[in-house]
Amino acid sequence: MSKKINTTPISGTQELLPEIQKTFDALKLKINNSYNQHGYFNIETPSIERTEILLAKAGGDTEKQIYKVIKTAETETDSSQALRFDHTVPLARYVVEHENDLTFPFKVSQVGLNFRGERAQKGRFREFYQCDIDIIGRNTLSIAYDADVISTLLDTFSTFNLNTPVLARISNRKILSGLLEALGLQSLSKDIYSIIDHAEKVTPEKTKMNFEELKLKPDNIQKLLNFIELNGNRFKVIKELNNLEIKNEKFSAGVAELDQVLYLLESLGLTENIIADMKIVRGLDYYTGTVFEFILPEYKSIGSVCGGGRYENLTGYFSEKSFPGVGGSIGLTRLFYVLNEKHLLPDSTKEKIDYAVIPVSEHEFDEAFNVAKKLREKNHSSTIVLIDKKLSDKIAYASKIAENGIVIGEEEVNTKILNAKNFETGEEKELKYE
Amino acid sequence: MSKKINTTPISGTQELLPEIQKTFDALKLKINNSYNQHGYFNIETPSIERTEILLAKAGGDTEKQIYKVIKTAETETDSSQALRFDHTVPLARYVVEHENDLTFPFKVSQVGLNFRGERAQKGRFREFYQCDIDIIGRNTLSIAYDADVISTLLDTFSTFNLNTPVLARISNRKILSGLLEALGLQSLSKDIYSIIDHAEKVTPEKTKMNFEELKLKPDNIQKLLNFIELNGNRFKVIKELNNLEIKNEKFSAGVAELDQVLYLLESLGLTENIIADMKIVRGLDYYTGTVFEFILPEYKSIGSVCGGGRYENLTGYFSEKSFPGVGGSIGLTRLFYVLNEKHLLPDSTKEKIDYAVIPVSEHEFDEAFNVAKKLREKNHSSTIVLIDKKLSDKIAYASKIAENGIVIGEEEVNTKILNAKNFETGEEKELKYE
Repeated sequence: MSKKINTTPISGTQELLPEIQKTFDALKLKINNSYNQHGYFNIETPSIERTEILLAKAGGDTEKQIYKVIKTAETETDSSQALRFDHTVPLARYVVEHENDLTFPFKVSQVGLNFRGERAQKGRFREFYQCDIDIIGRNTLSIAYDADVISTLLDTFSTFNLNTPVLARISNRKILSGLLEALGLQSLSKDIYSIIDHAEKVTPEKTKMNFEELKLKPDNIQKLLNFIELNGNRFKVIKELNNLEIKNEKFSAGVAELDQVLYLLESLGLTENIIADMKIVRGLDYYTGTVFEFILPEYKSIGSVCGGGRYENLTGYFSEKSFPGVGGSIGLTRLFYVLNEKHLLPDSTKEKIDYAVIPVSEHEFDEAFNVAKKLREKNHSSTIVLIDKKLSDKIAYASKIAENGIVIGEEEVNTKILNAKNFETGEEKELKYE
Repeated sequence: MSKKINTTPISGTQELLPEIQKTFDALKLKINNSYNQHGYFNIETPSIERTEILLAKAGGDTEKQIYKVIKTAETETDSSQALRFDHTVPLARYVVEHENDLTFPFKVSQVGLNFRGERAQKGRFREFYQCDIDIIGRNTLSIAYDADVISTLLDTFSTFNLNTPVLARISNRKILSGLLEALGLQSLSKDIYSIIDHAEKVTPEKTKMNFEELKLKPDNIQKLLNFIELNGNRFKVIKELNNLEIKNEKFSAGVAELDQVLYLLESLGLTENIIADMKIVRGLDYYTGTVFEFILPEYKSIGSVCGGGRYENLTGYFSEKSFPGVGGSIGLTRLFYVLNEKHLLPDSTKEKIDYAVIPVSEHEFDEAFNVAKKLREKNHSSTIVLIDKKLSDKIAYASKIAENGIVIGEEEVNTKILNAKNFETGEEKELKYE
């Protein structure tokens, strides 16, 4: 026996006490239910994948962050298997593998753990829940599905009953991409995307300096600076974008797509929760059309709490067929961490068992089991206090784990009349045995 | 782009198609809900643990089966972190780590993935769901809690609505252990346990031969053979055990404990689902009192579908304090595999979305979004068919993913009268817009 063994969970993982775990589980269940209610089929791929699948596309960071798994008996470090780092790559494999058994467009949700060997720091996790929805088409996919994804995610957030509003910031990559084409700046698009992606974290002067470093003409810099400041409701933004008078097909297509997505969201009455915002590009190269992210406007420092967009082809690395898609993801572990830290979760989450049934002595154990059973049949959670201590200790224990206590002694067994006491309010309520 | 990449999931993992995944998820939710209803607090420890924690107790097989995790950037094979292979070791660490924040007896459930690098074979998984409940005491724990665990697991199985009965076979290790003491055979107890554990898989003659190989006296062999054939209801088995007239404290204590556990289960009306059975020992050294396993008597070849028991001290490897416990576990992934294979799952599991809303053209997209929303508000799952095809194709798609279809054309928008058609029965039902 070693008493020196370190029993703290490893850094970068979440380990909660039972009552707060209940709150976390409730949030996860709300997400699952909401996705399901919106017609997404849940799937669950294995946590362990072939390394070649995970690295088919990846470069740089991903490769460094991946966890390989190795059986203890093996001696090589070069494992052929590793833990998934997101849900997108396994989904691509799943779609290629099961194509003939799926119905397209395939509305799919994935709620599960992902693993990344990032440097551990506050609010950064190495093992974390990611809750994704995606809609995958075969060859084509209507732009209206982009509104389906965004509205589903907004509806999902609304089930959380947070003490603060949520705002979806929406753009379309084709607009910026078309603008750069029109300005003859395509060759610099990667750098420009990156500067815009960071514009929120620095001063406008710094963003201007960043553009200047690319040796852009002052005229073009001003156009870009004006462009990224465009935001507001559909009517305003679409009008301002048209006023730019950009003669470019891609630009026009992007504006039309954005217009339709915003229109459908408006028709669902989500106007207060959405804004068109040209500052949104979403870092990765991945997205090709609609891009969005959710923020909590009263807590801007938290950053994005949900994000996603449209991609041309999910399975490019595994298949020659074309599967365009649109999706979004809630990083649940991080979200829960920040919501908890800022006290934004509603207080109403039930954290205790409904009833603790307390037999006075061993002679009432069987009655207690039966009363607990009857309570469960009425859809109340119940537990039986079976500790071998005096009654006051039993009641003290019950009050820590349950909302209400029911003491069962000789009298209760005979009269079949039970009293439930609410531990918080002290209120008593008579219950009939049946 | 590589077309040759292997997209099958790695062997020993479960990957289901969307409709059967729904059935699996429903079963998992039933387990979670039942554990919760019975007053168990769910916890979730990280999948990744320090290797020294996982191997604190383990020997032999466990060490060979463990998956180490290594960041790709690292070159050593000797990792300090590994994937958990069960829920018991992480629970022991959790209890020691959080002792002061927990209320004892601590009724706890864990439903999550475990990982074992076993040789892949049909029905054997390397990544699998295990659904555990445990009740952990501090220093002492009433024997009545053993009945709590067994009845909770039986109640949980009853929520599955299987097309076949479930039987809990129950014994108490103290009985056999006391018998061996009385016969002066303690020194051979490990071998004898192992022979009894395998008695079910071989003929009675083979079991007798196995005992003979231990060079036991014929008299003792006959006593053991008679002993392991003892099974039946409480009244019968307790009487037959008493008739053995074994003068041994441990034996008597075991009989008394078994009697009380069976009595409490009987008082819950579970008589048809339980049997006392002296053949039950449960392989591991771990258990010290009550032991049980569940079988499907009509499908004996499946073997045990649930098992557990009482252990003296959960945390012996991490702490000098004493935490006696009782617990049990459902191996969900394996259970689902066999239930599915033998067609024992009820047909009633809902596999489709409740309603597909089908706009005739783009002009009804916004109405379709709104109708889908209203259906969700009435607690129906709904999806919108947004594909750009002719109406008959839209309806064909809807019939594959949903139970009912609602077509929305110009007329429906104007009259606000909608018709829902059940795709299976062909029945139509008029719905008011609100």
